[in-house]
Amino acid sequence: MKKISIPPIVVTFIIVVLAGLVVALLLFIKNQPAPTRGISPLAVIEAMEPVSEKWGVNFPNQYSTLLKTKTNNTRTTYGGSDPVDKLAVDPMLVDLFAGYPFSKGYAEDRGHLWSVEDVRATPRLNDKTPGTCYSCKSSNNPSLWAEMGMAAFDSMKFTELGSKIEQPIGCANCHEANTMRLVVTNPALDEALKSQGKDWTTFTRQEMRSVVCANCHVEYYFEGDGKYLTLPWKNGTTIEAIEKYYGEEGFSDWEHPVSEAKMIKMQHPDYELFSAGSTHYNAGVACADCHMPYTRDGAAKFSSHDVKSPLLDPNGTCGTCHTDVAYVTERVSAIQTQVNTTMLNTEKAIIDAIKAIKKANELPGSDPALLEEARSLHRSAQLRWDFIAAENSMGFHNPEETLRILAAATDSARQAQIKAMQSMAPGLVARK
Amino acid sequence: MKKISIPPIVVTFIIVVLAGLVVALLLFIKNQPAPTRGISPLAVIEAMEPVSEKWGVNFPNQYSTLLKTKTNNTRTTYGGSDPVDKLAVDPMLVDLFAGYPFSKGYAEDRGHLWSVEDVRATPRLNDKTPGTCYSCKSSNNPSLWAEMGMAAFDSMKFTELGSKIEQPIGCANCHEANTMRLVVTNPALDEALKSQGKDWTTFTRQEMRSVVCANCHVEYYFEGDGKYLTLPWKNGTTIEAIEKYYGEEGFSDWEHPVSEAKMIKMQHPDYELFSAGSTHYNAGVACADCHMPYTRDGAAKFSSHDVKSPLLDPNGTCGTCHTDVAYVTERVSAIQTQVNTTMLNTEKAIIDAIKAIKKANELPGSDPALLEEARSLHRSAQLRWDFIAAENSMGFHNPEETLRILAAATDSARQAQIKAMQSMAPGLVARK
Repeated sequence: MKKISIPPIVVTFIIVVLAGLVVALLLFIKNQPAPTRGISPLAVIEAMEPVSEKWGVNFPNQYSTLLKTKTNNTRTTYGGSDPVDKLAVDPMLVDLFAGYPFSKGYAEDRGHLWSVEDVRATPRLNDKTPGTCYSCKSSNNPSLWAEMGMAAFDSMKFTELGSKIEQPIGCANCHEANTMRLVVTNPALDEALKSQGKDWTTFTRQEMRSVVCANCHVEYYFEGDGKYLTLPWKNGTTIEAIEKYYGEEGFSDWEHPVSEAKMIKMQHPDYELFSAGSTHYNAGVACADCHMPYTRDGAAKFSSHDVKSPLLDPNGTCGTCHTDVAYVTERVSAIQTQVNTTMLNTEKAIIDAIKAIKKANELPGSDPALLEEARSLHRSAQLRWDFIAAENSMGFHNPEETLRILAAATDSARQAQIKAMQSMAPGLVARK
Repeated sequence: MKKISIPPIVVTFIIVVLAGLVVALLLFIKNQPAPTRGISPLAVIEAMEPVSEKWGVNFPNQYSTLLKTKTNNTRTTYGGSDPVDKLAVDPMLVDLFAGYPFSKGYAEDRGHLWSVEDVRATPRLNDKTPGTCYSCKSSNNPSLWAEMGMAAFDSMKFTELGSKIEQPIGCANCHEANTMRLVVTNPALDEALKSQGKDWTTFTRQEMRSVVCANCHVEYYFEGDGKYLTLPWKNGTTIEAIEKYYGEEGFSDWEHPVSEAKMIKMQHPDYELFSAGSTHYNAGVACADCHMPYTRDGAAKFSSHDVKSPLLDPNGTCGTCHTDVAYVTERVSAIQTQVNTTMLNTEKAIIDAIKAIKKANELPGSDPALLEEARSLHRSAQLRWDFIAAENSMGFHNPEETLRILAAATDSARQAQIKAMQSMAPGLVARK
């Protein structure tokens, strides 16, 4: 082969150029910003940051879907987030909640971003309303709880606490800043789980995709003069366990002015009903699977934060698992109709009981022991009915459990009516 | 190319041999037996042949599994085919069926091949028992119905008809001979479908895999003095439609000797409950899919005729569609427990109603109109309860419908009790 002759000056030039390039590359690499692990946040978020907009810089898809909860307030057959006046739809509620603020105003809840505005506008507020009523309304809460403690938060008046509450429900209610880990932020939920020997920090992510909803979507009460937010879960979360708890505590929300029974108002026990062995819960489905389904925006896949009824997008929710969406939505509809029919019959039975007890109350000489049994049965019937009525799925979260509970509620209500009648004429029907 | 020289004698020999072979082949083909279309039955079966053993020559797998219904009589938690004494398990039944033969003897049914033997041994028989009681017991029936007509069959005494009944339930009850087509053989079912404007000959095979079960697994009554077998389906097959039908006909099975209410005994309305919008029925599942699942014996695939509870072989039944058999059987168990608990509460409510009506019956001066309302509510409650109690799935054929019906039954029973109390002291509680 022929040799190629290169002058030494050229060889030197090439070596210098290559060496220079190597140095330049090394300098370029050295001057890159330090890599982060996995995610590279555009903005660092303060712990328990109340302002969701700041988190939204890092999570624009989640944030922009959260914003939809302000505008997408649509009605479904039995629910949704259109602020329907429940008292107008079903006037029996006025008699059932007589003597309690829910008989004055009871609107369907709107989306998460309306929480502060709507709680301040409810006609149920009065001078004695405690700060505890903000517990489920604001992303200011986690930092306030950390700062002042839940006992101090709860013992303030609603109006006093109001100056500290600026943000509606938001990122900080369910997420740890920066890691975005799902967390229990409501101290009452943490305490309720501990009362059952459970430690949520050991739960799987899929479990947490339901448990964070239980930060709010649970039955609760205000314990003692400090109105300390408490979940009645020590004995378990079935209706029987909750009734037993309230009985042991001697607690009641109010006395029914007509029957004089000591009543319990149930508040949206969505988590309790769903987790009581429902077919979806037992199959490992989380609240978020149906109410915050994974969705796509271009190449990005994320969990929609437009939390709403799955019936408003059955293809995107039910359709994730079920191939025949028309079939399953028809099933939901049939079940909800069955539950609604049964629930209205329970209401009629409770109202008949209230009327019978009223009559017995008014009649001098009614047997006080039988009358007290009647009141106790009124309480028992109504707390069961309200466990279903206040729950947000018209029974679909757990159809069989719902109908089992309503059957028992109707039975107790009619027995209350019978006891009241017996109290007026004790010999009328033999006591067992 | 080179020519090959063959002697003429050899050519002739080859031609003769080939011609002989052709003739032999043609003769062989001619002597083959005539081909059948598709299947080649070993035995030709007479139309409506009562003896299943004869059909078994052609269908040995189906027949040998049918034989298992004689031996595989196993109990499940709430059912099965072990002849458990239901009156001993639940003594409330004795009071509920007072005055009716079911209070004397009520055993769980055994498998299909026990049908004749067991119906003859039941303590419910008496001198007046009509031949109609054989309607669902024998594969002799299709040919008897064809020969003598259902009216003549039904108007015979049970004891007289007995001499013509030799075979238990068998092939001829559901199949057309030779074609093996699934057919409605019970004239009462044919008439009931026609009363709804339905023609079963237009049904798909998958529909027929449920409808043939309705030859027997339905509510029926004996109409008129001729004890003519009739399904109360003209208004539909829901409990409300059936109640309406009996009301229009002014029919009752017996008068309850304690409450004096005109009662209806429900008989195994498995088809009605299952087809009332249950999730499995709506999804296109047939009775046979779960109770007669396809199975294999070597290379042969056939539908098992060992008709029994799917819970006795959940892998072979539920497992055909559901991947997690342990999960689904746990669901069945949970649902059946919920139904059983609710059903027992309904029974207690009905018994309380009976006691209250008894007391009012005994008290001179009870308001007869209110007392009659009480009796009517007793009837209404008990026929609903029995629609579930007499059905063979402890509610699993249609859980939500079951619990809806039981809730309504309990409500009616307690209202019956209330009306009876009011009848004794009409001013006690205001009538609406």
